[in-house]
Amino acid sequence: MIVVMKPHATPEMVQRMAQRVEELGLKAHIIVGTNRTVIAAIGEKRNGERETLESYDEVEKVIPILAPYKVASLETKPEPTTVRARDLAVGNGHIGVIAGPCSVESEEQILQVARAVKRAGATGLRGGAFKPRTSPYSFQGLKEKGLQLLAAARSETGLAIVTEVMTPEHVEMVAAYADVLQVGARNMQNYHLLQAVGESGRPVLLKRGPSATIDEFLLAAEYILDRGNSQVILCERGIRTFESHTRYTLPLATVPYLHERTHLPVIVDPSHGTGLASLVPPMCVAAIAAGCDGLIVEVHPDPQHALSDGQQSLTPQVFAETMAQCRRVAEALGRYLAVSAEPPQPAAVSLSS
Amino acid sequence: MIVVMKPHATPEMVQRMAQRVEELGLKAHIIVGTNRTVIAAIGEKRNGERETLESYDEVEKVIPILAPYKVASLETKPEPTTVRARDLAVGNGHIGVIAGPCSVESEEQILQVARAVKRAGATGLRGGAFKPRTSPYSFQGLKEKGLQLLAAARSETGLAIVTEVMTPEHVEMVAAYADVLQVGARNMQNYHLLQAVGESGRPVLLKRGPSATIDEFLLAAEYILDRGNSQVILCERGIRTFESHTRYTLPLATVPYLHERTHLPVIVDPSHGTGLASLVPPMCVAAIAAGCDGLIVEVHPDPQHALSDGQQSLTPQVFAETMAQCRRVAEALGRYLAVSAEPPQPAAVSLSS
Amino acid sequence: MIVVMKPHATPEMVQRMAQRVEELGLKAHIIVGTNRTVIAAIGEKRNGERETLESYDEVEKVIPILAPYKVASLETKPEPTTVRARDLAVGNGHIGVIAGPCSVESEEQILQVARAVKRAGATGLRGGAFKPRTSPYSFQGLKEKGLQLLAAARSETGLAIVTEVMTPEHVEMVAAYADVLQVGARNMQNYHLLQAVGESGRPVLLKRGPSATIDEFLLAAEYILDRGNSQVILCERGIRTFESHTRYTLPLATVPYLHERTHLPVIVDPSHGTGLASLVPPMCVAAIAAGCDGLIVEVHPDPQHALSDGQQSLTPQVFAETMAQCRRVAEALGRYLAVSAEPPQPAAVSLSS
Amino acid sequence: MIVVMKPHATPEMVQRMAQRVEELGLKAHIIVGTNRTVIAAIGEKRNGERETLESYDEVEKVIPILAPYKVASLETKPEPTTVRARDLAVGNGHIGVIAGPCSVESEEQILQVARAVKRAGATGLRGGAFKPRTSPYSFQGLKEKGLQLLAAARSETGLAIVTEVMTPEHVEMVAAYADVLQVGARNMQNYHLLQAVGESGRPVLLKRGPSATIDEFLLAAEYILDRGNSQVILCERGIRTFESHTRYTLPLATVPYLHERTHLPVIVDPSHGTGLASLVPPMCVAAIAAGCDGLIVEVHPDPQHALSDGQQSLTPQVFAETMAQCRRVAEALGRYLAVSAEPPQPAAVSLSS
Repeated sequence: MIVVMKPHATPEMVQRMAQRVEELGLKAHIIVGTNRTVIAAIGEKRNGERETLESYDEVEKVIPILAPYKVASLETKPEPTTVRARDLAVGNGHIGVIAGPCSVESEEQILQVARAVKRAGATGLRGGAFKPRTSPYSFQGLKEKGLQLLAAARSETGLAIVTEVMTPEHVEMVAAYADVLQVGARNMQNYHLLQAVGESGRPVLLKRGPSATIDEFLLAAEYILDRGNSQVILCERGIRTFESHTRYTLPLATVPYLHERTHLPVIVDPSHGTGLASLVPPMCVAAIAAGCDGLIVEVHPDPQHALSDGQQSLTPQVFAETMAQCRRVAEALGRYLAVSAEPPQPAAVSLSS
Repeated sequence: MIVVMKPHATPEMVQRMAQRVEELGLKAHIIVGTNRTVIAAIGEKRNGERETLESYDEVEKVIPILAPYKVASLETKPEPTTVRARDLAVGNGHIGVIAGPCSVESEEQILQVARAVKRAGATGLRGGAFKPRTSPYSFQGLKEKGLQLLAAARSETGLAIVTEVMTPEHVEMVAAYADVLQVGARNMQNYHLLQAVGESGRPVLLKRGPSATIDEFLLAAEYILDRGNSQVILCERGIRTFESHTRYTLPLATVPYLHERTHLPVIVDPSHGTGLASLVPPMCVAAIAAGCDGLIVEVHPDPQHALSDGQQSLTPQVFAETMAQCRRVAEALGRYLAVSAEPPQPAAVSLSS
Repeated sequence: MIVVMKPHATPEMVQRMAQRVEELGLKAHIIVGTNRTVIAAIGEKRNGERETLESYDEVEKVIPILAPYKVASLETKPEPTTVRARDLAVGNGHIGVIAGPCSVESEEQILQVARAVKRAGATGLRGGAFKPRTSPYSFQGLKEKGLQLLAAARSETGLAIVTEVMTPEHVEMVAAYADVLQVGARNMQNYHLLQAVGESGRPVLLKRGPSATIDEFLLAAEYILDRGNSQVILCERGIRTFESHTRYTLPLATVPYLHERTHLPVIVDPSHGTGLASLVPPMCVAAIAAGCDGLIVEVHPDPQHALSDGQQSLTPQVFAETMAQCRRVAEALGRYLAVSAEPPQPAAVSLSS
Repeated sequence: MIVVMKPHATPEMVQRMAQRVEELGLKAHIIVGTNRTVIAAIGEKRNGERETLESYDEVEKVIPILAPYKVASLETKPEPTTVRARDLAVGNGHIGVIAGPCSVESEEQILQVARAVKRAGATGLRGGAFKPRTSPYSFQGLKEKGLQLLAAARSETGLAIVTEVMTPEHVEMVAAYADVLQVGARNMQNYHLLQAVGESGRPVLLKRGPSATIDEFLLAAEYILDRGNSQVILCERGIRTFESHTRYTLPLATVPYLHERTHLPVIVDPSHGTGLASLVPPMCVAAIAAGCDGLIVEVHPDPQHALSDGQQSLTPQVFAETMAQCRRVAEALGRYLAVSAEPPQPAAVSLSS
């Protein structure tokens, strides 16, 4: 931590501040510069000394040297983590694709999508049973009935079920059905929920909040890791910016940036990241090219009658074409999309199309 | 709702879309323009027709005409709402000031602050017992012990207690001690929490999420109102923008903008909105000048040893000076800051200073 | 400047970097911390060493200690600057108000506005003759004819003329008519224009670009100061954020923040900052309360037939009421709005209303 | 254009507004809805009626139906435009890569880079002679001497020269040396400059401003097109958001979004878009995967001694590897990177590596 003193700070003030730094258990090292005196505080911890020191009038600013997250850091664990759930594998060379409808609407709908996305190469099935909706008047999901339909789809297809949990008291119920618990963007800093999924024993897919910095995102993951759960997938799903022609702005540079800092796998959600079905396929392919460890994509058999997110859902056919492009791009870069261990017989043909 | 067709849309497509509009229970009205055909859909509801219609290829965009919120709207209730808790009153001409430390740290600390802020004119006492912290390694609050200390401070001063609740299962416990339940910015879209405070019987202070639009903010309030709780205070506390010299960007135009649309009172939090103690007093005064119904301000007897947010906390003395300025500005504009019904005897003098 | 080495940096790399720092004419000071080694580079200049050092693989980041601007800084000149043009004075206790139409449209229009805003207390007259318009199909201003009409309005009222100059080759012509040259938000980083107005001998009103940081804003001012022109007024006119209910987001905390760093006066433009006429009066008053040195406000005798910006223009009557409120708030805070030295006789009455 | 009346608007107000719409030369069509009356204004032009109508009190908002740009639109010209300069071709199936240093620093430097980027497959050479720098104290470029060095590099390599012009009075000089005139991000709304390059007879590379919306970006292009110059390349170079870990946020969805609306080619600048050399290669590849028509990349033989932008410049070797990846990804998607017509003999080998 570097404490920058204001230009008018007297030698006494500098001494007093150095003493305060040492009171905090750090070693103070005074450097007198041409225009400013700075104090290097050695032995930096990560629990609030910065704010404390910044509250002194004679301090101009305090600059942390260390990243605030620890367990998520590559410095703590240099080898990439693979998160696995059934045939879904993401990270450390594995690219996994999770696809499915925004909301589970009916048995027929979810089975139809599950078969189609598996045929196209997905190894995870997404589908919302508990839906966080901006408006209280929107469809809120089928709740436990939805979870049962997801489980039925898994029985038939073997796809890993990825579904959102919205509140700590539902964690046990959702974990009873799901293979991966999703924490949505709106709940990225719902700390009680993070702790609950951290204790659930299930892998967690953590979505970046639309205004979260990278540090805040990794600190949210740290809440889960801190409870002993190391199976965390980070998901870039777009940030809120001044751009309004797309639903969010999808910053793909997050992918290589995170790979330089954390061992956790990073996947991308181009459906929410753009909000427009026509932009989803190119952004899926671009995300693969940027080096992501997986995708999560909204697919619906009939987007025009979907109960939610129809405008950003792909049809099964467009999804299959997109997957074929992703596969070719991954191979061109020496990488491979994971496929299901036992693809259903008839689908094997279309996979190579 | 206005459905704008793409330029290439054929008359058959327009007819099909008009029919789809009518299937949704709306009346379709086709208008053929010079470059585009649009369909006015009359009888707009607020539950997702827009997304559905936007999923058609031949539709360029769908433009809602009505605001998505209803109960919070001035159209539903044209007279401003006053929210009251003990001597704290905000809205419809009442300006209430809530002040206190970021976190409750000890009995001495909270009593000392409570006396000071009351003396300066506050009618509400803020103080975190359950603290949402970005890092799992930061101080997380004294929890129920903190609530007890707040209650003790109320016993002595009569100030209304405003404190944050972070998860639905704590609502009952926090409501047992607090006069007003605060929903923090990170939880603005934690819908289970919104529903729980909506059923708590306590007034709610709802902070705007740092990337929430005004519509999203009012829809979050709508979740609370929808559970029968009409005592909701909206709080602008800054949004996340590219500006990094302040912690957040504090957009005071939110105050008059909300007053044109909702009957709910609007208060401002300049402490989080700027993150720098020296900017808090001018922004308190500016918020009053912009017409807000109240303030929530962080005050600490010794910011340099605060366990959290020291860099943005006012000392009691600076707070008292700020209150004096706020009072003068309010009066210059024909408004008045509420004061405690029975100010403690010795304080009465300093109030008029 | 603090050079933070990556965790894997060897002692040889640290030595090499210290040597590179010294090659740049700085003194290197190595500090070995618990997790990182940092090099304090003493004698920091402001011309690009940072980028150079950041291009080394073994360097994690380089943190500047000094602000990048110099002449604009309070450290260089601790007493506030007053900028004057005729009766318009802003800064160092003087609050000046500049008002007038977005565009000069006709002699009658500009004279009518000039008289009205003078009567209400303005000492500067704004009005665009050269209009930067987002679309090539929009009204682009009356050009030199507009300047002549402004000069005529000055002859009658004595108001200082503030008008925009868009390109270096117009500086001489505009300076022949105007008292203050305005550099618009779109041109904040048009460096040839900044240099040209820096050499014009006229005071300059520099608007903040909608995505400019405070450092970039002050560096733009520095381009003007660097040419020997010390008469620069900084104008906060709103930044671009995700908020779309207002045209821009108006961050009033800019005012006290700049006052802590620069001696240059800071004024506020609530018309562009909000884009909605109904929000302009409260934000004018709030800007005064936040401590600004002046306002620039769009006023039009008939907003509904304005050739540009009608939706954000005040009528003369609303402007006069707003001025009265601003005056009362300024006085409540111990400050005063400047008024014209010789107010026209009949207006003197309404000034005190 | 749809004029939405406020809920309280009386039938008389609606009639008056309809009349006002007709005065503007449009046909008014009144639609009485359940909660609101709207007036569809048929025959929409693009020159400011919206602002005019929004200035009426009884109008809630005015919603444009048509995009504000015209000549740039796919509706005006449905076939994609190819922009060509020597061997550089971008658009309509051609992918062109422009590479080179941030600034031209010396003959040796520019020749060395030119040879290297040509060998790797670039067909355009970038290099700044006139440099817009945030600080007046930074290196401002070699000016005309720099242009001469670029021309020398062209003589040897045949690469098309792409260089920035900062002010209208330099257009003639720069056009005498350059093959493509670049308008930088800071100047995207410098209308006199846009008009001057529009009349220059040279192709123009127009960079998106960091806070420009897509409509503003296309309207800036429209200023150039409006002067009869149809050779405009649009360049996404990153926008300013709350993200500070990268220099800007690079929103690749701009590429397919623009392709759905304009015939102009779209290229991407990952160097400025990220500001970090390690992120440039994956974002180059991702941009190709997203369907862009070209790239512009900073390459320097010795980034650690570059006079500007060293931290985001690739070495020639990393650039060559990146190009190889781009080529493979393009081919996987059925597209091809353009290469120089007559590649120098020794380079032909490395091209196929």
